[in-house]
Amino acid sequence: MLANNSNDDQKCKIRRLELADKNKGFIELLRQLTVCDSVSDKEFEDRFKELASEGDDHIICVVEDNDTGKIIATGSVFIEKKFIRNCGKVGHVEDLVVDANARGKQLGKKMIEFLTEHAQSMGCYKVILDCSTENKAFYEKCGFKEKEIQMVKYFP
Amino acid sequence: MLANNSNDDQKCKIRRLELADKNKGFIELLRQLTVCDSVSDKEFEDRFKELASEGDDHIICVVEDNDTGKIIATGSVFIEKKFIRNCGKVGHVEDLVVDANARGKQLGKKMIEFLTEHAQSMGCYKVILDCSTENKAFYEKCGFKEKEIQMVKYFP
Repeated sequence: MLANNSNDDQKCKIRRLELADKNKGFIELLRQLTVCDSVSDKEFEDRFKELASEGDDHIICVVEDNDTGKIIATGSVFIEKKFIRNCGKVGHVEDLVVDANARGKQLGKKMIEFLTEHAQSMGCYKVILDCSTENKAFYEKCGFKEKEIQMVKYFP
Repeated sequence: MLANNSNDDQKCKIRRLELADKNKGFIELLRQLTVCDSVSDKEFEDRFKELASEGDDHIICVVEDNDTGKIIATGSVFIEKKFIRNCGKVGHVEDLVVDANARGKQLGKKMIEFLTEHAQSMGCYKVILDCSTENKAFYEKCGFKEKEIQMVKYFP
């Protein structure tokens, strides 16, 4: 039993995104979330380095299935620095997705908890995210509450 | 008439935040938006420099009333770099407020337009913001549409 538990923990291990994850289905996973065209190795590396330069202020996390070597969950959080709230900080959770074949394993909840704890450890006074009404119940189970409405303007 | 128009334009001139704005009512203006305790000169300068180091990826803009020397409007936008949407970028508008005594001069609309154009010029595919339902109509007049809901978790 112990071996099994430890195996399960290993399977749900959340770690930072690595360059090699591009070939482990990271982009294909994001495609389950929204439009995500093919990204060249160069584009991926450039964006990876830009984000890495932000250090703990912007982290992208993944879960890799050790059996298949595929990325089955991802989520990110970045830290916004403000003047309000006594020069406070806010964590913004973005682009959380769990592979359709890996649902029901609490991976989404574990990812949200990981990103939330990171924001707290960075000194944020709150963490926020935008979601569809269909996903509201999931985030409520994760301890979030509905607050405002998101407005958007797309550029042509 | 020409002189008057030019004077009006001057009064609505949007510029980047400067260190000296702390003594021109910038913090007091933010207090009309939300909790914003007193900030020491050192704290202000440190946060100002942190944000300035992000360059065009995070700008804080203000309008100064040239008659009174007070900051009467402010708003910010920062650029989030993503992998989705072909390594796309998203502009996040935050902390927009117009002094209660300076409303009705379209300062809020001008500020939103300025921040939106900045996001577009930085290559963003969209700009987003969170607002209360009471402010929804204002942002609709600025060309925004309601999209998702904002969820929040506050830290103790």
